[in-house]
Amino acid sequence: MVMHNRSQSGYSTWRLIADELRGEIVDGGLSPGTRLPSESQLASRFGVNRNTVRHAVAALAADDLVVARRGSGTYVAEHTVLVHRIGLRTRLSDSLGERAKGASARLLESEIVPAPAAIATRLDLDDRLALRMKIVRTVDGRPISLSTSWFDADRVPGLADRFVAAGSLTRALRDGGVEDYVRGATTIAARHATTSEVAELELLEGAVVLAVEGFDVLPDGTPLQLGITRFPADRVELDVDPGR
Amino acid sequence: MVMHNRSQSGYSTWRLIADELRGEIVDGGLSPGTRLPSESQLASRFGVNRNTVRHAVAALAADDLVVARRGSGTYVAEHTVLVHRIGLRTRLSDSLGERAKGASARLLESEIVPAPAAIATRLDLDDRLALRMKIVRTVDGRPISLSTSWFDADRVPGLADRFVAAGSLTRALRDGGVEDYVRGATTIAARHATTSEVAELELLEGAVVLAVEGFDVLPDGTPLQLGITRFPADRVELDVDPGR
Repeated sequence: MVMHNRSQSGYSTWRLIADELRGEIVDGGLSPGTRLPSESQLASRFGVNRNTVRHAVAALAADDLVVARRGSGTYVAEHTVLVHRIGLRTRLSDSLGERAKGASARLLESEIVPAPAAIATRLDLDDRLALRMKIVRTVDGRPISLSTSWFDADRVPGLADRFVAAGSLTRALRDGGVEDYVRGATTIAARHATTSEVAELELLEGAVVLAVEGFDVLPDGTPLQLGITRFPADRVELDVDPGR
Repeated sequence: MVMHNRSQSGYSTWRLIADELRGEIVDGGLSPGTRLPSESQLASRFGVNRNTVRHAVAALAADDLVVARRGSGTYVAEHTVLVHRIGLRTRLSDSLGERAKGASARLLESEIVPAPAAIATRLDLDDRLALRMKIVRTVDGRPISLSTSWFDADRVPGLADRFVAAGSLTRALRDGGVEDYVRGATTIAARHATTSEVAELELLEGAVVLAVEGFDVLPDGTPLQLGITRFPADRVELDVDPGR
């Protein structure tokens, strides 16, 4: 593949090269711990100068996909991706395992508002108001998810305050009398991050997010929560629990 | 949000605006069938000229996310996204429902080769060779997935030929004596499409793909297939079957 100096679509050359290498890393062609080809090898492979290659590799390093080792070269990083398991009863905190120690959740916004029609229907709100909470989760200071969660505002009074006190939505719900809930349906999409997601998840422009819509219900089937969670695709993969 | 003429990262302004609108469409803020704001309203909102807005809206139209209606404006398209259900026994053909009529699967490559170590381990290959098949699936002529599937080459002799004859992997496996198999594990990632994926899935440069790794086993737990399927994120969403 020989790259032209700037592609027709306005994509810069270094970004195309970074994407190509990223694809090889994600697909396992370049496995964790292996050494990247040298700058001059990459320059010759892609038909560009070494500056362009350096720019591409710097972008991969900014995403923690590769690590430079002084005097030895650049290596594909190991364990850069958190795996979040999606199943009937899985909470994000469970998926983090060992790394849960460095995890925290912060409330960015909360408001009680009339819900958009599609959300009011899913939550059986009739004319009741909705509580909308926007939460960012970090591991070791690095954002790993941004959630917008919708609840019936009457379901758990003071839920936002309880969340701030407890630091966990599961605990806040339990403190408010919701002992258990299960995942009713999950839809997974992917797209480029929006400008606000780039800011709130500390991404590079043009980064990819996984957008997971989860609908949680009480054990008797009553709707509890409709949540849309955005995960930076460079930091998180999803693992589907086949429910056995 | 006011856009500058060209962002620092080399992303062009029209693409940022297209991404922003795409995010609003995907998140339901702009629901299917609603009218987009006019070009001049969008130009004023983003602080750009109408040409830039036109370029952004054309990109959304190229992805079938919006549809221009003559003399009436541009509307968010309805039913543009196929939903593929992931569960224990779901085949892609089942997910397509009504649209399965227009669906076809084509073998791009097949070869019998030593497998990479990670794949040999998952498939318990010992020293046996692997069959690698690369398949593109289309609906109404439009690519919706690109799969690379790995099998023990000894499992089903003539599998690639059977696939070409049957037009379906499930049927080809059945013809070769594999009556049933189930999904053992599924991992979902997202990233920018690589250059070859852009070509094989007929995407725009910089498009996003969902990359699903599925590991299928025979009812007795014997490994059958390790497949990596790339779905264009603008065309396909994944729906997780909670397995109840």
